Amino acid sequence: VNAQGEEATSNSSSEIAPQPYGVTTTPPAEARQHGVGANVFIVERAAERLSIYDLKAKALLPTKISGLGNMKHATMTFAPDLRWGFVSTRDGQLHRIDLETLSVAGTLKTSNNSIDIAMSQDGQHVAVAQYIPGGLSIVDVDTMQLVKALPVALTSKIDSRVTGVVDAAPNEFVATLMEGKQVWRVAAENGDFKIVETIELGDDIGIPYDAMITSDSRFYLVAHLGKADYSVVDLNTHPAKLRRISLDDAEIRITPQTPVKLPHMASWASAHGHVFAPVVGEKRIVVLRSTDLEYEKSIAVRGHAVYIVRRPDEREVWVSFSGEDDDAFVQVIDTESMVVKHEMKVGARIYHMDFTPRGGQALISANADNAFFVVNAATYKIEDREDLESPSGIFGSWRAFRIGL
Amino acid sequence: VNAQGEEATSNSSSEIAPQPYGVTTTPPAEARQHGVGANVFIVERAAERLSIYDLKAKALLPTKISGLGNMKHATMTFAPDLRWGFVSTRDGQLHRIDLETLSVAGTLKTSNNSIDIAMSQDGQHVAVAQYIPGGLSIVDVDTMQLVKALPVALTSKIDSRVTGVVDAAPNEFVATLMEGKQVWRVAAENGDFKIVETIELGDDIGIPYDAMITSDSRFYLVAHLGKADYSVVDLNTHPAKLRRISLDDAEIRITPQTPVKLPHMASWASAHGHVFAPVVGEKRIVVLRSTDLEYEKSIAVRGHAVYIVRRPDEREVWVSFSGEDDDAFVQVIDTESMVVKHEMKVGARIYHMDFTPRGGQALISANADNAFFVVNAATYKIEDREDLESPSGIFGSWRAFRIGL
Repeated sequence: VNAQGEEATSNSSSEIAPQPYGVTTTPPAEARQHGVGANVFIVERAAERLSIYDLKAKALLPTKISGLGNMKHATMTFAPDLRWGFVSTRDGQLHRIDLETLSVAGTLKTSNNSIDIAMSQDGQHVAVAQYIPGGLSIVDVDTMQLVKALPVALTSKIDSRVTGVVDAAPNEFVATLMEGKQVWRVAAENGDFKIVETIELGDDIGIPYDAMITSDSRFYLVAHLGKADYSVVDLNTHPAKLRRISLDDAEIRITPQTPVKLPHMASWASAHGHVFAPVVGEKRIVVLRSTDLEYEKSIAVRGHAVYIVRRPDEREVWVSFSGEDDDAFVQVIDTESMVVKHEMKVGARIYHMDFTPRGGQALISANADNAFFVVNAATYKIEDREDLESPSGIFGSWRAFRIGL
Repeated sequence: VNAQGEEATSNSSSEIAPQPYGVTTTPPAEARQHGVGANVFIVERAAERLSIYDLKAKALLPTKISGLGNMKHATMTFAPDLRWGFVSTRDGQLHRIDLETLSVAGTLKTSNNSIDIAMSQDGQHVAVAQYIPGGLSIVDVDTMQLVKALPVALTSKIDSRVTGVVDAAPNEFVATLMEGKQVWRVAAENGDFKIVETIELGDDIGIPYDAMITSDSRFYLVAHLGKADYSVVDLNTHPAKLRRISLDDAEIRITPQTPVKLPHMASWASAHGHVFAPVVGEKRIVVLRSTDLEYEKSIAVRGHAVYIVRRPDEREVWVSFSGEDDDAFVQVIDTESMVVKHEMKVGARIYHMDFTPRGGQALISANADNAFFVVNAATYKIEDREDLESPSGIFGSWRAFRIGL
């Protein structure tokens, strides 16, 4: 990991960092068939493109948004006016997607390897979390200009990859330094993007590999490798309050195994007064109390959880898994009785899972089966299956209106 | 109140009821300046039109959508593809608003007096709740045709106004019969719109004047006149479970007064593990436990609450009031300490209040001051003020992605 970042600009909004790699724009592709809200973007990893599923037509659009680069772990966020979507790539590009014409409307290469992305609460800036060089890049959504580079070298004692970037109230970005074992709070107000607080997670933890923020924007949860605990950063105050919560359960003795894929943390695993969270290398998920994130209990599941997603009515959370034996399956947990109430085989190597916002359908990509599935969230029946090349992330425009996405 | 409804069609999706009043369409008006998500629609009651505030430009658009009829209590909902908005009027019209061209794209008169509106969870149908004749009209969002009329006369023992219509999981509509003292659950799946359940609220209650659904779509809360209690309908099961919860507090003795305006119930008053609800004619709000809606406590406020809205980060709820002495003020309640932490004077006769979805701004209409305010949700400072004629309801496209709106 290399942390040779751009020089940071001073903390003045009038000073704009030079744009290091240049903006390119491609002409508009074919038009959409329905309103912008109907379109769900699905990453086709191997094909280095986005496919678009029209939820109203219940079909893929003929349009593909191609030539995007290395789409491994590519994630997408949306401007709140729903004019633009943004996708960051593993080769360090930030693409702006025109949601009306379904085409690329500007690309900025901010680094050599980026991993995560967040939209500011005021909708004016995108933050890109970078591995190489380690840092955060802040980009203006309208101009696609880099307005601030925050290299890890700026404050951290060691070079570090940056991950888990989210928006937080009031108009902050929060991100995690992996090797640096720090959390940054960055002010997104007034355009200065100052690191207003650096929270040391402690040297006694393993690599913090991912993070999430609760949907009320209060708790930033950081997951570590090597031990069943989380760092919980309470953002309610400045300075933030840090505590460690153990996921150990006296009644459950499991020797952790190395999972094929690390779990994905996402703010939507909060349901019915609880947060449902994965444990690395163990075949259980943990239940925390929403209001203070205290450990409540564990639920045994069939494999190593990757995604834990709540159905919007909060009566169920759906869990996907890593590893060949389990990764085609989804288990459904009842959030009241806390039991696995249903298990279904959807498709091999499930890489992403989300629900339509009022909960009618689950949208699931099965990477090894080259398939995208629409599953009825009430009956568990597969309503549609589409062929895609190596699908992974699934992103709907409703993310524009949710804290932490 | 008159309940001479249209004849109900049979429960077959192939039989379409005749369209009683006819569809009209006006040509497109001026275009918007940003993406469809930027535009917030504000009812100008006296002018019988919608004004549009562009959240990104921080300005009113020149476009007005006029000639809409009696806009008293007009509410608006949005199709999930964000192609259409829908507004119901007090003279019984349902207007479809083209969110891309900002113009009327079809009008259907479904009754002589309608009060409330809901979008089906699958985005295909709008339900309009009607006073005269009492009933529900189900309209297809694409054709603007009436696909089902459900007059109160169909099942109720007495004529009745219908109010409080919401969507509920999985793809139902739920509505309240005021004089009928009933709740209807209507299946929105398969196009038959059958009343699958009729819940009798009991003869011992006052008129049920409004209702809301919790954001997890589980509890349908019905408020009654004349007594400090609610009917709570647990929709988790068929048949639903009905119970009555008292809002009385042994430590608080207040003689209820007649409020100038009845409180408005809305699903977003759920925050930090509690539901915050108004009490008719009393200068307090009640706090219920989110998971089961049991009474927890009361909080004294300066007047008779009308709106209680959570800031999206759930750290605060903002309360507006009825009556000349109080209706220009907003009180801010801390959801952890449960105390009134701030009070501000915004503008006279506040008729609606909502937040931008990530919580940056509160949007407030002050009817008597003919003004629309944008208030910074963190600093409480007024960021913008616009002149409007008799403004009331404020509706953003994020409603498309929320259960109960």
